[in-house]
Amino acid sequence: MSTGTLWIQRAITLDPRPRGFHLITGDVVRELPELESMAAGMLHLLIQHTSASLALNENASPDVRRDFETYFNQIVPEDAPYWTHTLEGSDDMPAHIKASLLGPSLTLPVTRGKLALGTWQGIYLCEHRDRGGARTVVATLIGSDSSWLA
Amino acid sequence: MSTGTLWIQRAITLDPRPRGFHLITGDVVRELPELESMAAGMLHLLIQHTSASLALNENASPDVRRDFETYFNQIVPEDAPYWTHTLEGSDDMPAHIKASLLGPSLTLPVTRGKLALGTWQGIYLCEHRDRGGARTVVATLIGSDSSWLA
Amino acid sequence: MSTGTLWIQRAITLDPRPRGFHLITGDVVRELPELESMAAGMLHLLIQHTSASLALNENASPDVRRDFETYFNQIVPEDAPYWTHTLEGSDDMPAHIKASLLGPSLTLPVTRGKLALGTWQGIYLCEHRDRGGARTVVATLIGSDSSWLA
Repeated sequence: MSTGTLWIQRAITLDPRPRGFHLITGDVVRELPELESMAAGMLHLLIQHTSASLALNENASPDVRRDFETYFNQIVPEDAPYWTHTLEGSDDMPAHIKASLLGPSLTLPVTRGKLALGTWQGIYLCEHRDRGGARTVVATLIGSDSSWLA
Repeated sequence: MSTGTLWIQRAITLDPRPRGFHLITGDVVRELPELESMAAGMLHLLIQHTSASLALNENASPDVRRDFETYFNQIVPEDAPYWTHTLEGSDDMPAHIKASLLGPSLTLPVTRGKLALGTWQGIYLCEHRDRGGARTVVATLIGSDSSWLA
Repeated sequence: MSTGTLWIQRAITLDPRPRGFHLITGDVVRELPELESMAAGMLHLLIQHTSASLALNENASPDVRRDFETYFNQIVPEDAPYWTHTLEGSDDMPAHIKASLLGPSLTLPVTRGKLALGTWQGIYLCEHRDRGGARTVVATLIGSDSSWLA
């Protein structure tokens, strides 16, 4: 079915978090009240930084998020002898790599006014710096208010 | 050129697969007959699980898909001493990590009624659990039936 | 706000690059003059290959891009004993893995005629083969010329 398309775009500022993996589904949805009026659509999120990333993973157990932090420190070591970009601190170059392993953006479907996530899926802010500060996410929400849902 | 936009959204159920990497391009396209009528568009797929993922890779050689399974088992070991989230089985926490290394979603261009993939590209269901069961993918197809193609 | 949606789609050919990570933001934007007239939108890029990928990372220091190449060679070794898909050369199977760790596509927001990237973000072509040749990227640009920007 052909309909007009709604476009909403805004920057969301996320409070500073410690290094690690943090659930931010609520923080994101709260900033997008227009989501509720969409029959079908997509939400695109881009984090405008190169040392933090976004992921979608288990939303219940804090130990999953802790194991993410442990794993990525293991696989992208700070003290590796091969780093040459070391001027901005030992956590900087590993943060760039982690950011690209996990990715800077998420695209999520919207169905009947809600994010169409699985029961156990939540949005993670992955903070890879020791002191990353506030982070900006550009949210682009596009959708239809009368789409054919089948 | 400004045109109305078509929106199609539906859930696709994928039959249970054994742990490993599986080509599902045909399974997905078969569920989206509206694809054929689109001049230009995008198909977004989200797997609604945190222990399986989607990827786009080589569609011809089964040994490529086998090497994917071997590699990810190597890089995300089940018996690592650092896992703390172990209650749901030794394949669970590695499955969460693999899911985020590969990602939960794909966005693919649609051109003249077909997915605009490269000759060798196919959609992979990456099943990271020993017994993952059926998997649900939400497909969102948006497009134009009279776009300017240049 | 509901508006008509603009759709632009075209293939962009990228000149052959040596194996490594290369900034291509300018090459991409140059091929999409329609970007300038969009108030709000999204640009989707898909690389139509399984041994090269796209990423978004630090756009200033060449040593960051060199460290990316070093890191991915370390983490996906060419001479690993577990590869079985070796017929197309020792750089082939690692290239497939790297391509899926980094991903074949990027979706980027467009705001007031420009890509809404962070100050330090640039688009990388990640060339994982020794002689990858020219690479094709399908660009799909959708947007609104009168969106409500808040």
